[in-house]
Amino acid sequence: MSLTQEQLSEIEAARSTPRPTLRAVSEGMEAHLYRAHPVLDHGFIRVVDYMGDDAAIVQAARVSYGAGTKHVSNDEGLIRYLMRHWHSTPFEMCEVKLHVKLPVFVARQWIRHRTANVNEYSARYSILDREFYIPAPEQLAAQSTVNNQGRGEVLTGAEAARVLEMLKSDANRSYDHYEAMLSQEGQQGLARELARMNLPANIYTQWYWKVDLHNLFHFLRLRADAHAQYEIRVYAEAIAACVKDWVPLAFAAFEDYRMGGVTLSGKAIAVLKRRLAGEVVAQEDSGMSKGEWREFEGVWG
Amino acid sequence: MSLTQEQLSEIEAARSTPRPTLRAVSEGMEAHLYRAHPVLDHGFIRVVDYMGDDAAIVQAARVSYGAGTKHVSNDEGLIRYLMRHWHSTPFEMCEVKLHVKLPVFVARQWIRHRTANVNEYSARYSILDREFYIPAPEQLAAQSTVNNQGRGEVLTGAEAARVLEMLKSDANRSYDHYEAMLSQEGQQGLARELARMNLPANIYTQWYWKVDLHNLFHFLRLRADAHAQYEIRVYAEAIAACVKDWVPLAFAAFEDYRMGGVTLSGKAIAVLKRRLAGEVVAQEDSGMSKGEWREFEGVWG
Amino acid sequence: MSLTQEQLSEIEAARSTPRPTLRAVSEGMEAHLYRAHPVLDHGFIRVVDYMGDDAAIVQAARVSYGAGTKHVSNDEGLIRYLMRHWHSTPFEMCEVKLHVKLPVFVARQWIRHRTANVNEYSARYSILDREFYIPAPEQLAAQSTVNNQGRGEVLTGAEAARVLEMLKSDANRSYDHYEAMLSQEGQQGLARELARMNLPANIYTQWYWKVDLHNLFHFLRLRADAHAQYEIRVYAEAIAACVKDWVPLAFAAFEDYRMGGVTLSGKAIAVLKRRLAGEVVAQEDSGMSKGEWREFEGVWG
Amino acid sequence: MSLTQEQLSEIEAARSTPRPTLRAVSEGMEAHLYRAHPVLDHGFIRVVDYMGDDAAIVQAARVSYGAGTKHVSNDEGLIRYLMRHWHSTPFEMCEVKLHVKLPVFVARQWIRHRTANVNEYSARYSILDREFYIPAPEQLAAQSTVNNQGRGEVLTGAEAARVLEMLKSDANRSYDHYEAMLSQEGQQGLARELARMNLPANIYTQWYWKVDLHNLFHFLRLRADAHAQYEIRVYAEAIAACVKDWVPLAFAAFEDYRMGGVTLSGKAIAVLKRRLAGEVVAQEDSGMSKGEWREFEGVWG
Repeated sequence: MSLTQEQLSEIEAARSTPRPTLRAVSEGMEAHLYRAHPVLDHGFIRVVDYMGDDAAIVQAARVSYGAGTKHVSNDEGLIRYLMRHWHSTPFEMCEVKLHVKLPVFVARQWIRHRTANVNEYSARYSILDREFYIPAPEQLAAQSTVNNQGRGEVLTGAEAARVLEMLKSDANRSYDHYEAMLSQEGQQGLARELARMNLPANIYTQWYWKVDLHNLFHFLRLRADAHAQYEIRVYAEAIAACVKDWVPLAFAAFEDYRMGGVTLSGKAIAVLKRRLAGEVVAQEDSGMSKGEWREFEGVWG
Repeated sequence: MSLTQEQLSEIEAARSTPRPTLRAVSEGMEAHLYRAHPVLDHGFIRVVDYMGDDAAIVQAARVSYGAGTKHVSNDEGLIRYLMRHWHSTPFEMCEVKLHVKLPVFVARQWIRHRTANVNEYSARYSILDREFYIPAPEQLAAQSTVNNQGRGEVLTGAEAARVLEMLKSDANRSYDHYEAMLSQEGQQGLARELARMNLPANIYTQWYWKVDLHNLFHFLRLRADAHAQYEIRVYAEAIAACVKDWVPLAFAAFEDYRMGGVTLSGKAIAVLKRRLAGEVVAQEDSGMSKGEWREFEGVWG
Repeated sequence: MSLTQEQLSEIEAARSTPRPTLRAVSEGMEAHLYRAHPVLDHGFIRVVDYMGDDAAIVQAARVSYGAGTKHVSNDEGLIRYLMRHWHSTPFEMCEVKLHVKLPVFVARQWIRHRTANVNEYSARYSILDREFYIPAPEQLAAQSTVNNQGRGEVLTGAEAARVLEMLKSDANRSYDHYEAMLSQEGQQGLARELARMNLPANIYTQWYWKVDLHNLFHFLRLRADAHAQYEIRVYAEAIAACVKDWVPLAFAAFEDYRMGGVTLSGKAIAVLKRRLAGEVVAQEDSGMSKGEWREFEGVWG
Repeated sequence: MSLTQEQLSEIEAARSTPRPTLRAVSEGMEAHLYRAHPVLDHGFIRVVDYMGDDAAIVQAARVSYGAGTKHVSNDEGLIRYLMRHWHSTPFEMCEVKLHVKLPVFVARQWIRHRTANVNEYSARYSILDREFYIPAPEQLAAQSTVNNQGRGEVLTGAEAARVLEMLKSDANRSYDHYEAMLSQEGQQGLARELARMNLPANIYTQWYWKVDLHNLFHFLRLRADAHAQYEIRVYAEAIAACVKDWVPLAFAAFEDYRMGGVTLSGKAIAVLKRRLAGEVVAQEDSGMSKGEWREFEGVWG
């Protein structure tokens, strides 16, 4: 991470001046506010603002259920009930705003989550910094031989060295030329909106990203998952750590029902019931394809 | 408005315990928090939470513009620029959550604004109160003879009395029968999800409604407009009064460019230019239909 | 259902004139076009237009996967893979437009699905017909004693008769007064936008509703479910029957993974694994609440 | 544009087999189906599917207006009325699906329009082609001296030659290294999801993009505008040409009210009225900032 001394001072200044509010306050989230949590070699996530807490979820649900929720006697039980039964609107009542610095190829994947508000640094208007993501040696993985969109073993030796050398030298040369094209010394200088096209996808950009808790959980389920690309997963994990401190009850329910849960098809249910009845079921006899069966065995053995 | 003494006490309790926060605080909005602003005969709007202020709009826009915004030297100028050029994302960085009590026929119109989060009191789960909107005498208007979806003169005398009598007696009879169908005394009692179908559209419901400032401005432009039905317009006006205290710079820009602005078609621009050049232009000669011309003259004479 | 002879003639006319197109055509859906499928006592759903078919889902997914999808060798396998792994965007590539006639209280529930396009008949602009939903005797159920938002036994005898009488007479009286207030004979006539407030929630309205297949599946999962209120479930089932003919492969995957599937929490997985290992697990020992355990046993015994 | 002979044959095959349908057909759009309209040096847009036509807009609006639309006697008048009064839902009833090939830096701007469905070619799963956008000499513009996010004069001579040389050589070197890192000859080969980070933003990607007509008009208003970057504007213009043939009445209204229209603030209205009354108004006396005044004079002189 590369915050300047000036930026760090601004953050400390913002943190030094609490003000009174009548709104719901999450002590756990206040501790995170403005602080940059480093991600990858130059990136970070910072919580810039938030709205609501666990109680706000319950409060909204109780409007939608009126005075009738006698059976679910406490907040935790109600939150778990809502999560289990896919109620989305009470979780939408919490909102968080993040400042994120991230490589462009990560941003391209991230932005596919459409139900969020985004303000990105404009390379049409401003000049990007010379900061590129270069994978750490232990992340320099070969193409997976079993998964078309995954990684296999870590590269080593000369191959790893060659890759790192290419990534670094190409990034620097592209940036040198970016600066050379923009320069107005002794020449007119190319328009910024054109010069940016020379920059590779591992350059860092930054944005403000605002999302409600329901949609954030959806993001985390897909991006903090083991199948997500490492470079976006570490962002999801850093965010998840903040969410856990912000809305601990909702996060615990999310972990149990979403991150730690599985969805079974009708066919998978039938196989499990046969197994529970003592039967040994083979793939050919399951109605599942080989791929489904492999995934099924991954969970159930 | 009909808040119970208990509800009023809860509101005062919530207002009596400020807590420190490091987040952006809007003093203007803090003064509104939790307080019920009466609307119609039994309705209200209450601000339950908010995120951001005028500075948050500028902050988000400055990320998207980076360090380059030297020319627009102050917040007000930048906010006006953003509004004038239809930039929506910086305004999306502010969020507000309202508790609203409103007649069902107003709720049906309101819900058509889809980019918001809603938790409504469930008449499937709970029993609705005996509260109906009965128009004040000065709102009891005849069908407009020029506008298919508008009002004309106020009804008076026997006709007005007949209408009020029908609205009141039908509301009460429907509610009596609602209670009679639900009752479990000496009978099983009809399911709530069925009994509710007997209730007319002027019964009050309530919901939590959360929306970002950009989409709220869109709502206000359509619903605080003179062409909106009176019964939703008064809600929009009550909300607008809070927004003005929350983000005064953004609201002033909204008033100038949206509420007080007009959109001219290419044909209308051409007519105005001819007028500015001294020409007298008639409808037949304007390229506009009679309806368009009438609306054009409504603004320009 | 109450289509006039004129409306039926219009439908037959629309069906009698096929025209050539170069677009994807679903024979199964062509057979449904424009025809009204009756739902409840006066309602219907009609497919008015559609875009795409099973092949369109595959085609869109193959762009997102490029030339690499060698392992999933056929359309059915790919569609099942996409459904299993929660890929939503390929299913968004199909779209359907329906004309629906439905009671207002059903419409109020339906509209909560925000990711769809809607044009509703306006009672501000036009006069509603005298058509009300009156439950069939076998749907006149008591409030459930175990589920706060469900139905129990069917009412019978005098209680059922009283309920039906109240629903019918209140509907008719409300409509009589609606007409009386609107009438311009010997009086001015109340504005339509006001008179409509006297009508109960079982009056029929109608709308055009357009939605993509991914969001339609989400709607069907929630509304064709056994826990959905009967009066919306029958609409979902009528739509599902059309979808099955439109995109048979996608619908079969939806049935297996969504309608026929279950989601297990981390705790439920642990219990099942202990059971598979021969252990007998009790609720107290499961980490689940009583409510969760009851639902768990509902599936697994 | 660089379609292979095989791709061209596929397109011609798809165009050679019309099938009967009962749906609304737009002859103008049928002529475009599947054909690639070239954009920039290697890009294109192709209409892959569509739903609805001008009549579908009217049909949906008439449901929302019922039988009352006697005053607007024809389709064109109604469509113009809907556009003038910002009615969005009837235009949402038409839908179009496009296959687009475009540089990554254009895709990054395009994707900010969130209300659309997208399936993009995955460089995590597949290997991108060696195709880069290199601006034509007349597009090689200097940074604007008056507009922070615009272009000024066209570069010439040695500076232009240097820029082109840098763009071309960097693109080719990056791609050579991309291939070298991926290669499995004599080495393991880097994972595709990592190797892609070396590619610059002018490489071409492709996607399926599906959007409704209302949101497409919004996209066209912003991106076919003179202030949009040239490289996205040419895509918007190519799409607009297809839309004009698809829904000619709606497109004509869009051109008059949106593309050819202007929005006036309350302050601008006041100035125009004073001018119409013969007064000469100066900026200092207008209530507008210098920037607003410059824009105002750009339209009104």
